[in-house]
Parts: sequence; C-alpha cells; structure tokens
Amino acid sequence: MYLYLIRHGIAIDRDALSIDEFRPLTKLGRKKVAQVADKLVGLDLKFDLIVTSPLVRARQTADILIDKQLSHNLEVSTDLAPGGNIQSWIADWDQRSTVDPISTLALVGHEPDLSEWAELFIFGKVYHQLILKKGGIIGLKFPAPAEHQSPQIEIGKAQLHCLIPPKYLM
Amino acid sequence: MYLYLIRHGIAIDRDALSIDEFRPLTKLGRKKVAQVADKLVGLDLKFDLIVTSPLVRARQTADILIDKQLSHNLEVSTDLAPGGNIQSWIADWDQRSTVDPISTLALVGHEPDLSEWAELFIFGKVYHQLILKKGGIIGLKFPAPAEHQSPQIEIGKAQLHCLIPPKYLM
Repeated sequence: MYLYLIRHGIAIDRDALSIDEFRPLTKLGRKKVAQVADKLVGLDLKFDLIVTSPLVRARQTADILIDKQLSHNLEVSTDLAPGGNIQSWIADWDQRSTVDPISTLALVGHEPDLSEWAELFIFGKVYHQLILKKGGIIGLKFPAPAEHQSPQIEIGKAQLHCLIPPKYLM
Repeated sequence: MYLYLIRHGIAIDRDALSIDEFRPLTKLGRKKVAQVADKLVGLDLKFDLIVTSPLVRARQTADILIDKQLSHNLEVSTDLAPGGNIQSWIADWDQRSTVDPISTLALVGHEPDLSEWAELFIFGKVYHQLILKKGGIIGLKFPAPAEHQSPQIEIGKAQLHCLIPPKYLM
C-alpha cells in the first residue's frame, strides 16, 4: 500500500484573515499546486482516495488534485486538521480497510503534523527531521499484507520512497 | 551546509561483466542521469565539490554531472566504494573543511550505503527504511555552524529536505 502525504499550497497570511480555518490559497499557491498535480498526472499517479483536512487551504488543494483527475474520491476528516489525532484516524481506517481495500491513498493536511506522522509511520517515533514544503509530497510504502489480509497502515512499518519539494515537480 | 547523496545510474548486469568495479552505465543509464542533471541545472543547483566512488558506474555518473557543469570540482574517494567507511570519510572531511569551507557537496556512490549514511546523518542510527533508486537523490541540510566555526558533517544532526526518485526529475 502506498500512502502520500501532501501539504496544502501557499495560503494568504494569518494577518490578512483572523480565522485561520478560512484562509484560502493565494493565486500563486493555486498555480503551484496545479503544476504539481500536472506533474503527478504525467507520471500516471492515481489515488484510490484523497482524504483532506477540513481547513479551506487544504480543501482547495485537494479540490485541485480532484479537478486534475488524480482521484475520483474525496473525503474530509477532522483528524487531519492541525494538531489532529492520527491514532484515531488509523483506528477508523483499519476498521474500514477490511471492507474497502485501498492501495493508493493521499492525505492532504498541515505541518508539522504530516512530517511527524511520516516519521511515526517509518521509524515509530518523531524526530522532527523531515522538511515538507507547502505543496510538497511525502511518499510511503507499507509492506504487502499477508494472504487474505487487508493492507494496513501501521506505525514503524513504512519505507520512505520520496520526499519532494514542489520546485522539483514543476 | 547541504549534502546531496546521489546514486549511480543503471549499469550493465553483473552477469555481463565479471569484475563488478568495471561495470559501466548502460545507454539508458547515461541518458537518465543526463536528464536528472539537466533538471538540477534548471533549478540552479551547483555543487562546490562532487566526490565519487572509484567504481566505473559511479565515476561515469559523476562525469555526467561535471559535463553538465553542476560542479567544476571532482574528487575520487575509496571511502565511497561499496561497503566504504563513512566514519573515516567524515574524519578526513572535518580536518579539511576547516581550511576549505564547502557549502554544497555531492557524494556519488552506491546502495545500501548511501541511504544508510543518510539515516545515520539524520537520526544517528540505521533503520534501512529509505528507498534510493538508481539515479535518485537524497538532500540533507546540516545546521549552520556557530560563528567562526566551519560547517561540519555530524551524525544525527541533518534534516532531510528531499528524497527524489529519478522519474520525478525527468
């Protein structure tokens, strides 16, 4: 199973809008996310499902990925909001994955959560040593499940196959 | 200080040439490394120095990077050969860096050494959880040195800012 962690694009400043949840992407932010999406389309990447944080800048980033047809399925999870509970998300996911197998999943969210989760998935602990830029992507590969088992997202089991700043995707 | 670890490109099979050290890049291997180099040139990346493993497939990879003018300085180190001694290399490097400051350095070498060294530089231990494809790149960032100090390559101090399979660079 492949899990991609995608950070939202550049949003308007915190000073410009008092409610953080509502800050939209800037024009440049939308453009860069669209360029990243085009690159991924060119590489034949497809997500069985995109799950996004409910915050506007993440929703808008996910919407661009959907517009570019990187996936046909979009869901929103409050567990992906800043400071969200990834353990709660994994528990829900494991229950669901037994009935709804997914082999390529993308989560759209925020820093420092995404890079912390990546370290947790890979190493089983958080080092704060991964740098994930806005519009950047982390790609994780989980081991193939045993026969008749569903693919699982497990702490400390993933391999890191890519960590790509957006400038390399344009 | 930025340290880039670059894996050599695709070489001819072990079956085709009995002496591993002499295996050259294939035509496709040379082409892909050249495409990766072109992408890096387009992003204005420059290396103050490239140090390569003495094996033919690494030397040829480094030569392509030099031909594309990603650096004007090339050296060979036996510490970068397969199973080489990175601790020995760091000791030599630290002595040298006090007289010859380098801010962007590339090492061209082999797996599993490069990804093990990356984990050592970042986390202080080896997990075997990074996947580095042939022609792929790992980018590490070391903390800025204290005033009047030289930049140092230290175990457990680096941040990972990119891990890029070659297909994303073409």
